[in-house]
Amino acid sequence: MIPPPFLAACRREPVPYTPVWLMRQAGRYMPEYRAVRERLGFLELCKSPDAAAEVTVTAALRLGVDAAIIFADILLVLEPMGVGLEFSRGDGPVIHRPVRSGADVDRLLPVDPAALAYVMEAVRRARAALPAHLPLIGFAGAPFTLASYLIEGGGSRTYARTKTIMLGDPGAWRALMERLSASIAAYLNAQIAAGADAVQLFDSWVGCLAPADYRTHVLPHMRALVDAIRPGTPVIHFGTGTAGLLEAMRAGGGDVIGVDWRIDLDVAWNRVGHDVAVQGNLDPTALLAPVPEIRARAAAILGQAAGRPGHIFNLGHGILPQTPVDHVRALVDAVHELSAA
Amino acid sequence: MIPPPFLAACRREPVPYTPVWLMRQAGRYMPEYRAVRERLGFLELCKSPDAAAEVTVTAALRLGVDAAIIFADILLVLEPMGVGLEFSRGDGPVIHRPVRSGADVDRLLPVDPAALAYVMEAVRRARAALPAHLPLIGFAGAPFTLASYLIEGGGSRTYARTKTIMLGDPGAWRALMERLSASIAAYLNAQIAAGADAVQLFDSWVGCLAPADYRTHVLPHMRALVDAIRPGTPVIHFGTGTAGLLEAMRAGGGDVIGVDWRIDLDVAWNRVGHDVAVQGNLDPTALLAPVPEIRARAAAILGQAAGRPGHIFNLGHGILPQTPVDHVRALVDAVHELSAA
Repeated sequence: MIPPPFLAACRREPVPYTPVWLMRQAGRYMPEYRAVRERLGFLELCKSPDAAAEVTVTAALRLGVDAAIIFADILLVLEPMGVGLEFSRGDGPVIHRPVRSGADVDRLLPVDPAALAYVMEAVRRARAALPAHLPLIGFAGAPFTLASYLIEGGGSRTYARTKTIMLGDPGAWRALMERLSASIAAYLNAQIAAGADAVQLFDSWVGCLAPADYRTHVLPHMRALVDAIRPGTPVIHFGTGTAGLLEAMRAGGGDVIGVDWRIDLDVAWNRVGHDVAVQGNLDPTALLAPVPEIRARAAAILGQAAGRPGHIFNLGHGILPQTPVDHVRALVDAVHELSAA
Repeated sequence: MIPPPFLAACRREPVPYTPVWLMRQAGRYMPEYRAVRERLGFLELCKSPDAAAEVTVTAALRLGVDAAIIFADILLVLEPMGVGLEFSRGDGPVIHRPVRSGADVDRLLPVDPAALAYVMEAVRRARAALPAHLPLIGFAGAPFTLASYLIEGGGSRTYARTKTIMLGDPGAWRALMERLSASIAAYLNAQIAAGADAVQLFDSWVGCLAPADYRTHVLPHMRALVDAIRPGTPVIHFGTGTAGLLEAMRAGGGDVIGVDWRIDLDVAWNRVGHDVAVQGNLDPTALLAPVPEIRARAAAILGQAAGRPGHIFNLGHGILPQTPVDHVRALVDAVHELSAA
């Protein structure tokens, strides 16, 4: 059987056209998603396997992309740790009992995978509902990004508290990162067991780090985590603002390195090496531009990938809520048309 | 006469030790500054030449740095354009009448340098009060960063409105950038005429751009602006999150390229080329760490600069308000001690 183009590209095998999927493809920009969200709050939707599977499948089929990604959130794994996770309307996620010391790290509850069974159930239902040839991606937040939420208590501009613990209390930092890495690996393996065909690690905010800090305080934990993921399942290792970190991220592991738009794709691929696949890297705001401009940008990125096996087209971060659905579909079509041999 | 180390380093001449100054060295972390701010609002302080000169000089002398930088704000040049600039407490700057169309660009008032005479007066007074050997830096926001404030009406996470105009209405974008570049050049030349020994262009948010967009929509305007600055005065060209843009920024101009901490300094210098000076690049949050850690990090950066003429030590962005003054002084001392031949 011919493997689906997305999985072939993860393994740097030749493909008939460049596969494409889009981060946050099931999201607020899409009317079908907004309709579901009128009935269900964000966390409620994550915890409703039928509804989560439905938005997952609807988005993939509506757009004609080459992979679905399970509807969930990178922070779900933190809830069973007992830190008081809340998704507040407008303000983004809040951790009501943030981690500020080694004692706080010790108080974190071990993650019982049963507490996240709703995600695995959504994966099973989405996998069952999807066409057999359409891969389903599972995902989790990466340890640094999750640690930053735990410590800051939410988003941050400077990550000052996170870095203060990382630099000032390396023992507590290591304990936290080890605990997170183990929980994330178990969680991803459970998603794989439930039917995920590939997994993505979102280290969304790791780009705030100096390369030396990444190498010392993040890279060993990433490597341990990636090594603990069931062999044979492609791992996508993604971050934003990582133009100075790419070589180190690649050393951290993953079959595919996710790259944002702040670096040319050809330059990024040269840096991580051509013996690994890459995913990216259109600026999500480009989808607000007129369709001919979107097509020109897709062509430019495909040109930088130069037809080399191992490119998965994606945005450099999630689709913005104000994006017209027609523009998203036009991008998917453009990638397929322009890359077909 | 031996030139001051800061100016020698701008010109890549040998220096007895690595010169250091720190962005936002006159700021909220410093008790003397907070005392002045109890009397004067932020904009009021900017518009009080005596007080602005005082905080400029006090910070430089208190820290023992190798340059003073005039106390002002990158957005001041926007006020005479008639867009309703306000510095609101806590929320950061607000533009009450943002630019959203070509017609809005046409409505911008031409900047009469007389409207900014208070800055030039502060430069004159600071220059007169500083020791003769201590250079004074003037500055302005760069066109892209100022355009982003004008269009977004304040700060932004995505710069979606800015990019929508940049990509969707290139004529309006070009008109705005040309107008900003001309105003900024005139403003910087006035600061130089008033006594500034060097100038820094803050393109603080340019790191949100894809390299191709920078090359098309920003670089030509930067080059025109830098070319219009009085020859013989060193120009520092600074941005954050620019690891993927450094070669293009260098092509935009400047004697010194300011680099943030998200890339190793030696890697950055290789990219911009050794025929230009570099400034940076300690993570400002590192100043929250214990002093021995600060010294180790200063040593690491000096090691990456490898004693090559043309390195000015600085942070990668401004000093954070919660930074202990003693830590800042310890950094300045460490740079001087560790770099002395």
